[in-house]
Amino acid sequence: MRFEVIARDPNSRARAGLLYTPHGVVETPAFMPVGTAGTIKAMAQEQLEQIGVEMLLANTYHLYLRPGHETIRALGGLHRFMSWPHPILTDSGGFQVMSLKGLGRVTEDGVWFRSHLDGSSHFLSPEKAVEIQLALGADVIMILDECVEYPASYETTKRAMQLTSRWARRAKGYYDVELAGIDDCRLTIDDCTDDETPNSKFDTLPSSAVLPVSSFQFPVSGSEQSSIVNRQSSIFGIVQGGVDKALRQESAEEMVEIGFAGYALGGLSVGEPKSETYDVVEFTAELLPQDRPRYLMGVGTPEDLVECVARGIDMMDCVMPTRNARNGTVFTSEGKVVVKNARYAQDEGPLDPACGCSVCRRYSRAYIRHLFNAGEMLGATLATHHNLHFYLDSMRKIRHAIRFGGYNTLRSEVRTHS
Amino acid sequence: MRFEVIARDPNSRARAGLLYTPHGVVETPAFMPVGTAGTIKAMAQEQLEQIGVEMLLANTYHLYLRPGHETIRALGGLHRFMSWPHPILTDSGGFQVMSLKGLGRVTEDGVWFRSHLDGSSHFLSPEKAVEIQLALGADVIMILDECVEYPASYETTKRAMQLTSRWARRAKGYYDVELAGIDDCRLTIDDCTDDETPNSKFDTLPSSAVLPVSSFQFPVSGSEQSSIVNRQSSIFGIVQGGVDKALRQESAEEMVEIGFAGYALGGLSVGEPKSETYDVVEFTAELLPQDRPRYLMGVGTPEDLVECVARGIDMMDCVMPTRNARNGTVFTSEGKVVVKNARYAQDEGPLDPACGCSVCRRYSRAYIRHLFNAGEMLGATLATHHNLHFYLDSMRKIRHAIRFGGYNTLRSEVRTHS
Repeated sequence: MRFEVIARDPNSRARAGLLYTPHGVVETPAFMPVGTAGTIKAMAQEQLEQIGVEMLLANTYHLYLRPGHETIRALGGLHRFMSWPHPILTDSGGFQVMSLKGLGRVTEDGVWFRSHLDGSSHFLSPEKAVEIQLALGADVIMILDECVEYPASYETTKRAMQLTSRWARRAKGYYDVELAGIDDCRLTIDDCTDDETPNSKFDTLPSSAVLPVSSFQFPVSGSEQSSIVNRQSSIFGIVQGGVDKALRQESAEEMVEIGFAGYALGGLSVGEPKSETYDVVEFTAELLPQDRPRYLMGVGTPEDLVECVARGIDMMDCVMPTRNARNGTVFTSEGKVVVKNARYAQDEGPLDPACGCSVCRRYSRAYIRHLFNAGEMLGATLATHHNLHFYLDSMRKIRHAIRFGGYNTLRSEVRTHS
Repeated sequence: MRFEVIARDPNSRARAGLLYTPHGVVETPAFMPVGTAGTIKAMAQEQLEQIGVEMLLANTYHLYLRPGHETIRALGGLHRFMSWPHPILTDSGGFQVMSLKGLGRVTEDGVWFRSHLDGSSHFLSPEKAVEIQLALGADVIMILDECVEYPASYETTKRAMQLTSRWARRAKGYYDVELAGIDDCRLTIDDCTDDETPNSKFDTLPSSAVLPVSSFQFPVSGSEQSSIVNRQSSIFGIVQGGVDKALRQESAEEMVEIGFAGYALGGLSVGEPKSETYDVVEFTAELLPQDRPRYLMGVGTPEDLVECVARGIDMMDCVMPTRNARNGTVFTSEGKVVVKNARYAQDEGPLDPACGCSVCRRYSRAYIRHLFNAGEMLGATLATHHNLHFYLDSMRKIRHAIRFGGYNTLRSEVRTHS
């Protein structure tokens, strides 16, 4: 996986770049919507393409339980299964497993958990998390990590950080063995664009392409067939350490020493004050290699986007735009609007007067409020569409400002309306 | 409202025509999807346009209760409220009201009922049904009728049919008074295309147009403002009489004597054998004026479309494609497929191998089955999209066969795969 920084903001640590994946190029800083069960809830893939989603996140925990990673592997991987020929990142499943109230137990080997669907018992190790993600075939896979709540004691935070480091080494070792012999191909996308190579079937697809089901049927001869769906999956490490800078530094150094295609910041936005989040992001990002993408996991608000990018972040994901939408709350240029409220029952204006998305061009607050009030699915669809457009458009503005100036102005504008 | 027959099948009573409404021209025979609460469940209006929906049906009962017809009137009518600049037909609300188990009571004056939402008491008279529909501003509105279940005694059927006739006269009288003085404008669309007339704001819109919210803000001066949203709403009568031909004949004669822009066949597909449905449709259609559209209410299966059109029907509506879709059942060229069944968990084929809709071009049965299994909204959306495409495409094939030949072949093909 190749990552190229193409511009830097002179007044902050913000940078714009290009992330080359086996399924297309992602402009960074990038916001990745969360498609928990292989679908961004209430949205069709065509709509995501229309909004300009370049890379999405899928949850390993959910897909492992249903329909099962072996089913998805048998169907050619997650890209083909969900008909998303663009980049995908999967998490390790650890965060969900450890969030299950009373259902998870962490050991040195891994984590025991019970399915929230049927109560069945499962074990997730660092190796298993990689195995499942390789079966899904994401372009970027994540190591299993232990994320602690806030507040947590120094000892708890340190223990979890050190366990994460040991797991990271195991995950990377397993990954290296699984993809052994095809290392040359993982180095850069440029090595793989020769049609003569067995891996040419993973060539970059145009990000705007709508592929028919049949075009996913890559010709694969028997000898080339493998249980590895995507031979170019890259693996990211995750820096832990809570809000303790010494622990963050130790974790970052360990991850860099192990060596990953990119580095994530985990364990943030778990309840700590916003100033601490920003402080840890700035401190940690600085410790990571300039030539690798930095991914801040599970963050955040529109203001978080601009503030964390200013501190050196390249990739972010969050359920906020999609989950809030389904609850009837939308993000607008004037702040949050709870459109399901009765006060909008006769409001003929669009969700956001400054927005050019296809929902704002066509539907009124009064209609969308009615849809929520009547429990109609279209309400969730329209609100989700708008919110994702808002987030993706915020990132477009951020990228533009980094390349062509005005980042400080953008930051203060976003702060004013948050 | 002008209706023009442009072709007839030489071997049946099937006919193709054009229905000119204030919001565009509808090619007949037409299938109208049901948008109960001002939305075709799980679909956005853009998708309906993509599929080729020309006219949709909305339920007066649901919109009267929520958000209320006065709210919709204040927001400029249903077309504007739901951002559907194409033709709309509303039912009278009577069918829903009388279907409410134990909640409705029919009197000579009208029908008392309790809201299924909050138990509040309401009264729907023939006049009130017209008043509500005029507030919604549909292009075609329906008279209040009494529809009896099957089987029903001769006396019950006769009483309901005669009550429907008396209500029809009252509805038509109320409609005439409400729209008094603008009769000239209702006769044909041609009379209304002069930009100088006060009614030019209701000119036909191109059926493919996607109008921004702002373009619904017609300039209306104070003196022209009226409580009538759509001055060109046309009213249809409804023929009742169960499966008794003498009663059907009496009802048809009464309706024709009162005089309506079109005539509906009500009280069918309520449990009677299919052969009786077809028999009554054929008998009744023959009694109605050649130059007016004939609308068969609440019917039916793909086979019903081709069979009832063959008996002289021009318009049909049914919840079957949309409701079945949400239950995980799709219509295909090979018959019905219950896609939510486990047997499709690894099926990489499209819903219907013979279908060219955007769902079949992109998504597999395995993925759609997963969406239903995981309770994801996109499952209902994709299945609904496909089913509506199937129905609309069936009607396209029917219209083509009427105009260019092959109707008998089409009938036997449909019968084979039903």
